[in-house]
Amino acid sequence: MTTVAAYAAPAAKAPLERTTIERRPVGEHDVLIEIKFAGICHSDIHQAREGWGEAMFPMVPGHEIAGIVTEAGSGVTRFAVGDRVGVGCMVDSCRACENCEAGLEQYCLKGNVGTYNALDKNGEPTYGGYSEKIVVDENFVVRIPDGLALDVAAPLLCAGITTYSPLRHWNAGPGKKVAVLGMGGLGHMGVKIAHALGAEVTVLSQSLRKKDDGLKLGADRYYATSDPKTFEDLRGSFDLILSTVSAPLDLNVFLSLLKTDGAFVNVGAPEEPVSINLFSVIAGRKTLAGSGIGGIRETQEMLDFCAEHGLGAEIELISASEINDAYERVLSSDVRYRFVIDTATI
Amino acid sequence: MTTVAAYAAPAAKAPLERTTIERRPVGEHDVLIEIKFAGICHSDIHQAREGWGEAMFPMVPGHEIAGIVTEAGSGVTRFAVGDRVGVGCMVDSCRACENCEAGLEQYCLKGNVGTYNALDKNGEPTYGGYSEKIVVDENFVVRIPDGLALDVAAPLLCAGITTYSPLRHWNAGPGKKVAVLGMGGLGHMGVKIAHALGAEVTVLSQSLRKKDDGLKLGADRYYATSDPKTFEDLRGSFDLILSTVSAPLDLNVFLSLLKTDGAFVNVGAPEEPVSINLFSVIAGRKTLAGSGIGGIRETQEMLDFCAEHGLGAEIELISASEINDAYERVLSSDVRYRFVIDTATI
Repeated sequence: MTTVAAYAAPAAKAPLERTTIERRPVGEHDVLIEIKFAGICHSDIHQAREGWGEAMFPMVPGHEIAGIVTEAGSGVTRFAVGDRVGVGCMVDSCRACENCEAGLEQYCLKGNVGTYNALDKNGEPTYGGYSEKIVVDENFVVRIPDGLALDVAAPLLCAGITTYSPLRHWNAGPGKKVAVLGMGGLGHMGVKIAHALGAEVTVLSQSLRKKDDGLKLGADRYYATSDPKTFEDLRGSFDLILSTVSAPLDLNVFLSLLKTDGAFVNVGAPEEPVSINLFSVIAGRKTLAGSGIGGIRETQEMLDFCAEHGLGAEIELISASEINDAYERVLSSDVRYRFVIDTATI
Repeated sequence: MTTVAAYAAPAAKAPLERTTIERRPVGEHDVLIEIKFAGICHSDIHQAREGWGEAMFPMVPGHEIAGIVTEAGSGVTRFAVGDRVGVGCMVDSCRACENCEAGLEQYCLKGNVGTYNALDKNGEPTYGGYSEKIVVDENFVVRIPDGLALDVAAPLLCAGITTYSPLRHWNAGPGKKVAVLGMGGLGHMGVKIAHALGAEVTVLSQSLRKKDDGLKLGADRYYATSDPKTFEDLRGSFDLILSTVSAPLDLNVFLSLLKTDGAFVNVGAPEEPVSINLFSVIAGRKTLAGSGIGGIRETQEMLDFCAEHGLGAEIELISASEINDAYERVLSSDVRYRFVIDTATI
């Protein structure tokens, strides 16, 4: 076991504080990663504050992890000491069900093992990226291409793959009109990736406050959802709406923005149920769907795609002592566009 | 103008009574159809009772129409006097938008013209199939193949196409596990068609009361939704759930019955909004979708398919004087499986 420093929430809704945790010995198929950077995802806050239901404490959040391999188990074949690597939202799965075999470990039929707020196969709690080091089975580690700096790559492990996967699955590309709803951590990556995939991209944001940024990141058009005219102008416009917001929405209104056979795909995860009039999907054979992160193979594909297109996250680098303040700023949408913790400051 | 006898609701929620209506002169592209049979669809009741919002009265319901051409306009090319024909839920559309051009007249971007409870292009109210005769543009008329008796063919014009279209669109066929939710007018056709398409078919009905019928019509398995064990046994089972019910449902529970990438497709149309927890679609990348009838070309394809496979509706033939009683029996699910009016009795 290795004792490492970390930032943890000792209880639900309590501020995070510095502590130490134990990492398991490096097993045959494990790598030990010195974490360099860890992104702050809105879902860290949902979980640390039990917005998604009962959670495990102490909790070390963080599933946007970028670092360097410092030790590799004897059976490790894909990584070596010195490699630049990332870890995302999961660190294991059953590896045997039809979804795992199809590379959809995120939908493992036995449930994947979350990077934190979960129990691993030995029943031990998992702890996330707000820490100095982590031990992970190499099958759940991805390579960060040389072209990507580690700090801007970290958020790709959640914000990147969570938007890339549905954009690919629902065929965003040339000739397709894609709206990205919400211009935050996920949304800004959705804009970059949808644009790089060749789609015509529209941002739907609460206000026009971030319009200049949106256009710079690749959006063709930018509308405020606070303006009722937006919904008249854009009625029946989109093949795909990627919703990255976790605030409650009037889904019927957003479904009216889709073309026939269009899809509204949710990757933001509201804490409350939403209401829908089923005529909103019957008229125009529309789809309301959801998507969660992506598989390991697809995460590697996404990193390679981002490196090829020069896409990193837009980040604000912070020290560990600023985590609690950063949480408040995320909740008030006051971040452009992802906080990343410099883990050397833990 | 031709005066014809009909059954109409004089006002919302009033019983239907015998009356007369005017049919327009037979235009260049019109056919005059002597209606032989008209099915009673649950949506007739929704509309006659204003369950779906404000409606037009007097209302002559009926959009499951089977009859014989008795006159054809000078420009009619596809039909001749004596032809066996059907008319479904729409009698016109803009014919110019991208959906109409794609054969998706049901999703006409300017709105199709309903067979009743609508205004035609001249601003005249349309009246449906509970009547002796109807005049329809030949482009919205389909041919009923000789192999299908007119009485059992009539319900195919709504119940048949409404289930056939989504079953085809979502690829029901060999190797696919399809559940049909609700064993009524739509549901029993869904079972027959899904079975004929080669899918493995499960019926999910409130009780096991109609189980023998369901298995006879082609279901492989039959479960009661009133039994909580059904939801444990069938968790993660289906590629497609075709919901034909218009009563409010706990969608989250039904979404849990889908496999990864499965779709819950609604063709029943609840009067009230439903609530959904978006995690129900995020976990397993699931789809909640809807579908409304089908296009004219696809309706013809469906009739040909049904003739080829010997699929008619299971019906209870009634006289026009029994319509009001039949409505009550539909509302209490007491019909096996579609009431069809013998229009000779009007």
